[in-house]
Amino acid sequence: MRQFTIAVVVGSLRKASFNQQLADGLIKLAPAHFSFTQLDIGDLPLYNQDNDATPAASVKRLKADINAAHGLLFVTPEYNRSIPGVLKNALDHASRPYGQNAWAGKPAGIIGVSPGAIGTANAQQHLRNVLAYLDAPTMAQPEAYIHLRDGLFDENGIGAASQPLLQNWMNHYVAWVEKLAK
Amino acid sequence: MRQFTIAVVVGSLRKASFNQQLADGLIKLAPAHFSFTQLDIGDLPLYNQDNDATPAASVKRLKADINAAHGLLFVTPEYNRSIPGVLKNALDHASRPYGQNAWAGKPAGIIGVSPGAIGTANAQQHLRNVLAYLDAPTMAQPEAYIHLRDGLFDENGIGAASQPLLQNWMNHYVAWVEKLAK
Amino acid sequence: MRQFTIAVVVGSLRKASFNQQLADGLIKLAPAHFSFTQLDIGDLPLYNQDNDATPAASVKRLKADINAAHGLLFVTPEYNRSIPGVLKNALDHASRPYGQNAWAGKPAGIIGVSPGAIGTANAQQHLRNVLAYLDAPTMAQPEAYIHLRDGLFDENGIGAASQPLLQNWMNHYVAWVEKLAK
Amino acid sequence: MRQFTIAVVVGSLRKASFNQQLADGLIKLAPAHFSFTQLDIGDLPLYNQDNDATPAASVKRLKADINAAHGLLFVTPEYNRSIPGVLKNALDHASRPYGQNAWAGKPAGIIGVSPGAIGTANAQQHLRNVLAYLDAPTMAQPEAYIHLRDGLFDENGIGAASQPLLQNWMNHYVAWVEKLAK
Repeated sequence: MRQFTIAVVVGSLRKASFNQQLADGLIKLAPAHFSFTQLDIGDLPLYNQDNDATPAASVKRLKADINAAHGLLFVTPEYNRSIPGVLKNALDHASRPYGQNAWAGKPAGIIGVSPGAIGTANAQQHLRNVLAYLDAPTMAQPEAYIHLRDGLFDENGIGAASQPLLQNWMNHYVAWVEKLAK
Repeated sequence: MRQFTIAVVVGSLRKASFNQQLADGLIKLAPAHFSFTQLDIGDLPLYNQDNDATPAASVKRLKADINAAHGLLFVTPEYNRSIPGVLKNALDHASRPYGQNAWAGKPAGIIGVSPGAIGTANAQQHLRNVLAYLDAPTMAQPEAYIHLRDGLFDENGIGAASQPLLQNWMNHYVAWVEKLAK
Repeated sequence: MRQFTIAVVVGSLRKASFNQQLADGLIKLAPAHFSFTQLDIGDLPLYNQDNDATPAASVKRLKADINAAHGLLFVTPEYNRSIPGVLKNALDHASRPYGQNAWAGKPAGIIGVSPGAIGTANAQQHLRNVLAYLDAPTMAQPEAYIHLRDGLFDENGIGAASQPLLQNWMNHYVAWVEKLAK
Repeated sequence: MRQFTIAVVVGSLRKASFNQQLADGLIKLAPAHFSFTQLDIGDLPLYNQDNDATPAASVKRLKADINAAHGLLFVTPEYNRSIPGVLKNALDHASRPYGQNAWAGKPAGIIGVSPGAIGTANAQQHLRNVLAYLDAPTMAQPEAYIHLRDGLFDENGIGAASQPLLQNWMNHYVAWVEKLAK
């Protein structure tokens, strides 16, 4: 059976991040032929085109990790009705220099959890716009705007009440990657 | 006559940035009772909520500079069909911690220059969405999607052919700030 | 005391529309110097530029009603993660022909109710983008993404539990119109 | 060789529409195993959920035409920084009633032409958001923001100077449909 490696990007650097917990829980719902590697985006410099020819070690590592993956999984909060700057900075780094966009052609999925009323809906729209430009074909449905609630997580990962919805999401994501990965 | 101080935010860190040149040229078109201070966003850390209680000196300086301003002027490129991560990171920093959003209530203008076909139009839409959430009332018209072209800049700033359009933009911006600044 | 007339636009034609109920309830929270006229958008033809010189009676009426108003109140559902076509069709009609945009300069507020998870958040972002282009200065905060819930409405309009949030929204809207109406 | 039928949606009703010309020219660049049928969206009523159980003949025809197609081709102007109301109205009609979304699963491409500075870039972003919700997997790259210019069209369709760009777009679109059509 073909094995797939997925690069996971979590949009928050907070240690107790709900989105980190969601990413960790989601991964456990994946089948055995999928493995996941989280991209480290917290030690990247702020992107500056002047450094395109002399990228930092953290930037080279980011691009190598993406290049080694068959697909992308974005798990992100919404900051100020868009994606976090820290996530956009990582997207920008790996898209450059011009013509060396590491994200291109990697099938992607987007999900997010929020205590707020709209469940990261605006962030996800902006992220879809960016991923379209980056040529990363992004799963359309099912969408998942996860509201933080009691029991969403338990000591094993995703709580029982939320498992059916998230298992269904993961099943569609797996099929999307299998269909579109190069 | 009332004096107005404007905080300028340039979305690119590149030394020879076209948007930096646009910002520098635009400022020269402003009337004498407007003064401009550029925010330094290049030395900010990546935003991490865990540090909200112990902000870096660069973050404290950013918020103090915004607090001292009556209005905001965003001059930014488009990266990957959205605003640059470096700009979003600055927006995120000064919006936190919850309840201490430094951008709130500051009238804003948005402009950008690009060599590309769409002149930063997508970045400007995303930035408008963010500024609405941040409660910074943003000038609607005139929009300005500036295409980089020969003669856009000269040794004094904005070239003669582009001055009427940009002078008109600045005149509307000045009126917007005068009307809405606290 | 100066009197203000507000043109109300409801984005759904459904008779029992929740957004129609929200509009009707909101209006009752306004002060006595504000009066409201709902725009009739259900009998407009589909916009076709070929008819700009010979507008239908319903189009002439729409533009006259907007011209007679000091401000705009949009109360709309989200259809397919954007604004309803019926609402966009009305926005398009009254924006034309080129140079005769009836929406220009009218201060606006946006609100919506939905049984869905994200409370019209995506529709509101798109509507903000359109209103910026149409030069209708749109209130930033407070946002209002209303989730349909038991007791949201009662026989008098807005139910008691939701009144504080919506009264606060209306108070800010009134101040926004008073400040920006021509 | 498998034959593919594509439903074409033109976002303007104007007889001499540039986007209609673009659609007509593009179709000529397609290979022989692709055929195209333009959806008639100009005689649809304004969408009203109250009529879901008793759709007009034009609505039934629209959904039947979509159901008969393997893929979707959207060729649209930008109206007021979003998609035209007439196009959104058609998208809304064929997405309802709930659970009977005719667009679902049809691979899609988006293109537009404009005399304006930003080449329909904002309309295309909004349309991408809508199509993601409608579960129509939409080609990411190449994007095409076509600026109206002398020679874009000639008596045979697409003018010689613009053919390479548009032929490349069509080639990618064909591959996208072949890969994702059910």
